[in-house]
Amino acid sequence: MMLARRMRIPWVLILTVNASAAPLPLMPMPEKVILSTGTLPIDASFRVAVTGYSDARLQGAIQRFTARVARQTGIPLSLSAAKGVTMQVNCGGRGSKYPALGEDESYRLDVSSTGARLSARMVSGVLRGLETFAQLIARGPDGFQVPAVRIEDRPRFPWRGLMVDVSHHWMPAAVVERNLDVMAAVKLNVFHWHLSDDQGFRVESKRYPKLQQEGSDGNFYTQADVRRIVAYASERGIRVIPEFDMPGHTSAWFVGYPELASAPGPYRIERRWGVFQPTMDPTREETYVFLDGLIGEMAALFPDPYFHIGGDEVEGSQWRQSPRIQAFARAHELATGHEVQTYFNGRVEKLLKKHGKIMIGWDEVLSPGLAPETVIQSWRGPASLAQAAIQGYRSLLSFGYYLDRLSPAGVHYANDPLGGGADDLTPQQAARILGGEACMWTEYVSAETVDSRIWPRLAAIAERFWSPRTVTDVDSMYARLETVSLWLEASGIKRGPNQTLLDRLTAGQPAPPLRLLADASEALGIEERREARAYTSLTPLNRFVDAVAPESDLIRGLERDAHALPGDAAAAARLRTALTAWAESQTRLQPVLDSNAWLSELLPLLGNLATAGKIGQRALELIESGQSAPAGWIEQQNRELDRLEKPVAEVRLAAVRPVRLLLARVNPQKLANSGVRYGNEPFRTGHQGGPKPIITLRRS
Amino acid sequence: MMLARRMRIPWVLILTVNASAAPLPLMPMPEKVILSTGTLPIDASFRVAVTGYSDARLQGAIQRFTARVARQTGIPLSLSAAKGVTMQVNCGGRGSKYPALGEDESYRLDVSSTGARLSARMVSGVLRGLETFAQLIARGPDGFQVPAVRIEDRPRFPWRGLMVDVSHHWMPAAVVERNLDVMAAVKLNVFHWHLSDDQGFRVESKRYPKLQQEGSDGNFYTQADVRRIVAYASERGIRVIPEFDMPGHTSAWFVGYPELASAPGPYRIERRWGVFQPTMDPTREETYVFLDGLIGEMAALFPDPYFHIGGDEVEGSQWRQSPRIQAFARAHELATGHEVQTYFNGRVEKLLKKHGKIMIGWDEVLSPGLAPETVIQSWRGPASLAQAAIQGYRSLLSFGYYLDRLSPAGVHYANDPLGGGADDLTPQQAARILGGEACMWTEYVSAETVDSRIWPRLAAIAERFWSPRTVTDVDSMYARLETVSLWLEASGIKRGPNQTLLDRLTAGQPAPPLRLLADASEALGIEERREARAYTSLTPLNRFVDAVAPESDLIRGLERDAHALPGDAAAAARLRTALTAWAESQTRLQPVLDSNAWLSELLPLLGNLATAGKIGQRALELIESGQSAPAGWIEQQNRELDRLEKPVAEVRLAAVRPVRLLLARVNPQKLANSGVRYGNEPFRTGHQGGPKPIITLRRS
Repeated sequence: MMLARRMRIPWVLILTVNASAAPLPLMPMPEKVILSTGTLPIDASFRVAVTGYSDARLQGAIQRFTARVARQTGIPLSLSAAKGVTMQVNCGGRGSKYPALGEDESYRLDVSSTGARLSARMVSGVLRGLETFAQLIARGPDGFQVPAVRIEDRPRFPWRGLMVDVSHHWMPAAVVERNLDVMAAVKLNVFHWHLSDDQGFRVESKRYPKLQQEGSDGNFYTQADVRRIVAYASERGIRVIPEFDMPGHTSAWFVGYPELASAPGPYRIERRWGVFQPTMDPTREETYVFLDGLIGEMAALFPDPYFHIGGDEVEGSQWRQSPRIQAFARAHELATGHEVQTYFNGRVEKLLKKHGKIMIGWDEVLSPGLAPETVIQSWRGPASLAQAAIQGYRSLLSFGYYLDRLSPAGVHYANDPLGGGADDLTPQQAARILGGEACMWTEYVSAETVDSRIWPRLAAIAERFWSPRTVTDVDSMYARLETVSLWLEASGIKRGPNQTLLDRLTAGQPAPPLRLLADASEALGIEERREARAYTSLTPLNRFVDAVAPESDLIRGLERDAHALPGDAAAAARLRTALTAWAESQTRLQPVLDSNAWLSELLPLLGNLATAGKIGQRALELIESGQSAPAGWIEQQNRELDRLEKPVAEVRLAAVRPVRLLLARVNPQKLANSGVRYGNEPFRTGHQGGPKPIITLRRS
Repeated sequence: MMLARRMRIPWVLILTVNASAAPLPLMPMPEKVILSTGTLPIDASFRVAVTGYSDARLQGAIQRFTARVARQTGIPLSLSAAKGVTMQVNCGGRGSKYPALGEDESYRLDVSSTGARLSARMVSGVLRGLETFAQLIARGPDGFQVPAVRIEDRPRFPWRGLMVDVSHHWMPAAVVERNLDVMAAVKLNVFHWHLSDDQGFRVESKRYPKLQQEGSDGNFYTQADVRRIVAYASERGIRVIPEFDMPGHTSAWFVGYPELASAPGPYRIERRWGVFQPTMDPTREETYVFLDGLIGEMAALFPDPYFHIGGDEVEGSQWRQSPRIQAFARAHELATGHEVQTYFNGRVEKLLKKHGKIMIGWDEVLSPGLAPETVIQSWRGPASLAQAAIQGYRSLLSFGYYLDRLSPAGVHYANDPLGGGADDLTPQQAARILGGEACMWTEYVSAETVDSRIWPRLAAIAERFWSPRTVTDVDSMYARLETVSLWLEASGIKRGPNQTLLDRLTAGQPAPPLRLLADASEALGIEERREARAYTSLTPLNRFVDAVAPESDLIRGLERDAHALPGDAAAAARLRTALTAWAESQTRLQPVLDSNAWLSELLPLLGNLATAGKIGQRALELIESGQSAPAGWIEQQNRELDRLEKPVAEVRLAAVRPVRLLLARVNPQKLANSGVRYGNEPFRTGHQGGPKPIITLRRS
C-alpha cells in the first residue's frame, strides 16, 4: 500500500480474474491483477537492480531474465550503458537453498509508467515474479512495453509437477533441460523423473553398474548429468523427484542382476509395452541389501526429501508360481499379492527413512500400516485420491492429466485436483491434496516428438495448479495459450506440427506442402495407437502421426472465425484462404503421397480434406450470399462430414470441425412437412471414447 | 576396380556431372558419380565398421555420423543389435592431426544393394565421404535407402572458407558451433574468424586483459571457448584462421590501450559502421612489443600456421596529422600512407614468423618486399587476385562471395575463383589461387539472423569451391539447394524466414499470418540498408526485414510452376492457392499491421501483395481458359508490377516475379496497328544496381 502511493499509480480498472476484457497474456493467471493506465517502455535502457537479500541463485535468475528480455525484444541489452533502473527487485530472504515443498512462492509486482518493482519474501517468489514480468512484455504502438499493473500472486497448490518417463523412450539431458526452462516459465515446481521401468534403467549407479550397463542400451544419465540437471532445476525453483519403480516394472534391472527377480533369468530389456511378469523377490534379504545400497547411493544424488518408489501395476504371476514366495507369504500371513507388496513397501520405506527420504508411490501403495508421511500419487481417479486424504495421507492428482492421451488442453483444464471425488472432503482432508502432476508416458513419444506431446497443453494444466479455482474460462485459456505457444517456440520447444519430421517423410524430394495436411489434422493418443499396430521400442516414431500436433492451432482459429460469421470480413477471408487450399490439396499433394508407403497411407486423409474444403467453400458462399441451401443439403453434408472424420493413419481430420460450424450457419431451406432443423452447434466428438466437453472458441 | 568387381555392381548408367536427369541430392556435387541399379536399405540393422587405420578423430566422426543417420531417419539405432555391417570404412592413415592446407581429402564411395564401402587415404577424406553418404539417404517406396552408386571425389580447391565477422555484432559460441557443423556438411574446410574490429575485440587475452575487458561490452570468447571451438572445427576437418585486423579497424583495442594509437585518446567502442580514423602507431617500438606479446599469446591458442592480420581500409588521417609519424616517414623514406603501412606489415610479419605463423592479409597488404609465403585475400575484385598471382603470391577470392549483400545464390554460384581476371593467368600462376572464402560481415546481421544470411546460399558457394569447374547448372543447383535447406533446418540452422522474429513483431497478440507476407518478400542487403536509415550497433535488428530471407523458396517454386503452365494441373493449383492467399491478404492482415509502428511500415507492401495476387489470379484465369487479354491489358499490368516491385521497409516484393511470368503466358489481344508484343520472359531486375543474371527455374 505504501508502495502504491509512492508510485502514484492511478487505479482505474479492477481486472478480476476471468474478466471478459482481452486478458493479459499471462499463464498461469495470477491471483490478483489490477490494471492501471499507462505503460512502462522496455527499451535499450532496461536495467534491473536488486535491493535487500541477494545471492548467487537470485543473481543467476536476473541474468537469465535480462537475457530473455533481450531475446524477447531483439534489443541488444548487453551494449546498453543504462544509468537508471527500470525494475527494482526486493527480496526478503533466501528461503531454502534447494526448493522446498510449501515454501513461500508469493510475490508482488507493481508496474507504473516510470518503473517496476518486484517484491517477494523469498528467492522462489522472485523467480515466479520475473516470469510474470517477462510474459507481460508486448508490442505497443511504438515499442515494447509492459502495462501499468499491480499483481499480487501466490500458488493455489504447493506441488505442481510434470512427470516424464525416460524409460520407454530415452530422453537426452538436453530435452530435460529445455523442458525445465519452460516449466519454470509456467511456474511449475516439481520435475518427477521416471528413471526406471521394464524398458530401461536410466541412471548411472557406481555401486551396481550393471544396472545401466546391461539395462539401458547405453542410454542413461551419468551421475554428473544428474547433478547438473538437479542444479539446473533448482536454480529455476524446481524440485527433482526421482522415481525407481519397484517391485514390478523392473525387467531392465534384472538384465544385469537376475538374482533380484522372483524367477530365474536370464532377463532382457523389454521392447514391448504393458504389464510384465518380472517382479522383485520380496522374500530374500539380499534384495533389501541391494536396495539399501542403491537407495543410499541415489539418496545422495537427489537432494529432495521425497523419493518415488513407483509401486504400480504389480503382475503377481512370478509370486504365485514360486513355492518359496508362497511359503514366505504363508509364514508372514500375507494373504494376497497386494499384501506381499505391502510387506515389500514397508521394508523399502524403512530403507528410505534410514537414508532420510519420504516415500511417494502410485495409488497401489496405499494399504494399512503405511507410514503417515507417505505421499500417494493418484492415477486411478478421484476416488482413490479422496480415499488417501480421508485416511490421512497427503496426495497428488495425476488422473486426468495424462498427456499421452493427447486430449485437448480444455479437457485437462476442466479437471480440478479438488473436483470430482474430492468434493465431499472436509477442509482438513482437502488440505492434504498437495496438488497434481501431469504425466508424460512415452510409449508413443520419442525425444524428437516429446515437446509437442507436452506443450502447449501443459501450460493449461500449470494454470489449473497455480491459479485460483475460479479461473476456469476456457476461451480465455485458449486465447492466452496462443501467446504461450509463441514463446515456447522461441524457447526452442517444438510444439508441433514438427516440420523436421514432415520434411523427413519426403526426404530427397523437394519439399511438398505436407504441412497443409498436418495443420488440418490431429494426432491420436495412446489408446488409439496401441490398437492401430504392433508398436515396440524398436518401432521408429517417424510417421505422419508423429509429426502432427494433438491440437491444431489453425483449426481452432478457423472455428473461432466460423463463429464470427456472418459479418466479420477478415474471418471470412481467413476461412476462404484455408478452404481453397484444402479444396486444391488433392491436386497438389497426390503425386507426393503416391511416392512411398509412409505417405500413401495418407491418401484417404487427403481425399477427405479436399472434400471437406469443397463442402466448406460451398457453405461459405451460401452464408455470404445469404441464400438458403437446397432442401436436405445441410443434412447430407453433415453425414458426409461424419464419414470424413473417421481416423486415418492414426490421425483425425480436424478440418471437419470448422466446416461443421459453417454448415450450422447456412440458412436451411424450410422443409414443408417437417419441423426438423439441422444446423445447431455440433458437439465435438472425442477421441477417448464418448463425447467431449464442448470447447467454444469465441475470443474473450 | 577390384572392389567394384567383387561387389558385382552392374554399371548401367553413367551420370556425368551436370546430367539433366534428376540429380542426386548432393551438394557439393562430387567429381565423378556413376549411378548403378538397386538400393541399399537403411534400417535398424545399420552398422559401420572400420578397417585399416583408426583413431579418436575417426571414431568420433563415425559416432556423429551414426547419430545423424538416426536423426535423418528417426530409426533408434542405439537399440539395434545389428550383426552384419552396412558400411565398411577403410582409412589409409591419419594425415595431419590438425587439418592442413592441401592435405588429401579425396575419397571413394561404393554403394551396392548389399553394402557400402568408403575408402580414403586420410581421415579427412573419410570425413568428406561420410557427409556424401549421409546426403544420399532418401525415402524410397518403402523405407530409407541409398542408391547403388560409385563416387570418386576430391576438391577442386584446397582452401574453401567462410569468414564470420563477430565484431560488428557478437556471435556466441553456440552460433559458431552450429555453423561449423553444417560447414562440414558441405565440405568447407576453413573457418576464418574475424575477431577484432572497431566495434569489438572478441577474444580473451590474459596478457592484455583490457583488450576484452574494455573493448567488447563483455561479449568475447574465453580462451577455453577458443580451444573448444578450434577442437570442434578440427574434428570436422575445418581449420580455424584467426584475424586480428590492424593497423586500422582498431578502435576497440584502444579503449583499453590508447597508447597503441597514433593520436591521444580516450577512445571508445565504435557503434557506427565504416572506416574510422583510429589507427595503430607504426613508429613506436612499444607497439611492436605489445604485438609481439599478443601474437605470441594468440599463436599458442590457434594451431593453424596461417594468421590473418587484416590490413584493409587504413584511414590515413591520424598518420598525416601526427608530426612525429610524418618525421618518421621522412626518416625511413616512406612516401605514402601505404608505404607506412607496408613498413608496419613488414614488422608484423617478422613477429608472425618468430611465432611460427604465415601472414594472410586483405588486398591492401600486397606491396613490394612482402614475404613470398604471404597469402592475399582479395575483396576488391578479380584484378587484384590476378595481380597477386602474377607477382608470385598465393591468394584467395572473396570478391563476389560477400553474403551480406544478400544476392541470390545463383549470383555467387556464377562467380569462379578462376573466372574474370584470372582467365589470362598461366597454369603456374593460376595454381597459386588456393580457393576462396565467403564473407559474412555483420553490420546488419545479429546472432538471431546470421543463419538466414549465411544459409542456404553458402552451400552453393561451397559447391563452387569443391566441384569441378564444369559444374555450373543453376537449375540443378537450386533443385538440390531445396534438399540442402531441409537438412539445414533439421540441423538447427534457422535459414529464414525467421518465425521467431515474425512472432515477436506481433508479441502479445494472437499470431497473425505475417508469414504470408514474409514468404512473398526478400530482404535487401547491406548496400540498400545503409541508405535506408541510420543504423548503429545499438539499433535492434528486430524488424520485418530481419525476419525475411534473402531469397524466397516459395517464390522460386511458384516461378517454376508458372514456367510449367499451361498444362500442369498441380502447378496451377499451387499458384491458385498462393494467389488467393495474396489477394485475400489485405483483409486478413491490415488490422494487424495497423497496430504498431514496426508493422504499419509494411502497409504499402501488403497493398502491393494484394494487388499482385489479383493480377495473378486474372492472368491465371486467362491462361487456363485460353482467352486472350483485352488490348493493352498485359502492358498495363506489367507497368503496375513495376510499381509494386519498389522496395518497402527494406524488403522487395518477390511475389511480383511469378506474376510477371504468368502475364507472359497470357495470349495478348493482337493490336491492329502495331507489331509490338509484350509478354516475353522478364528479366529479374537486381537489387545491387544493374540487371542480374536471369535465373531460370525449370526443374532439371
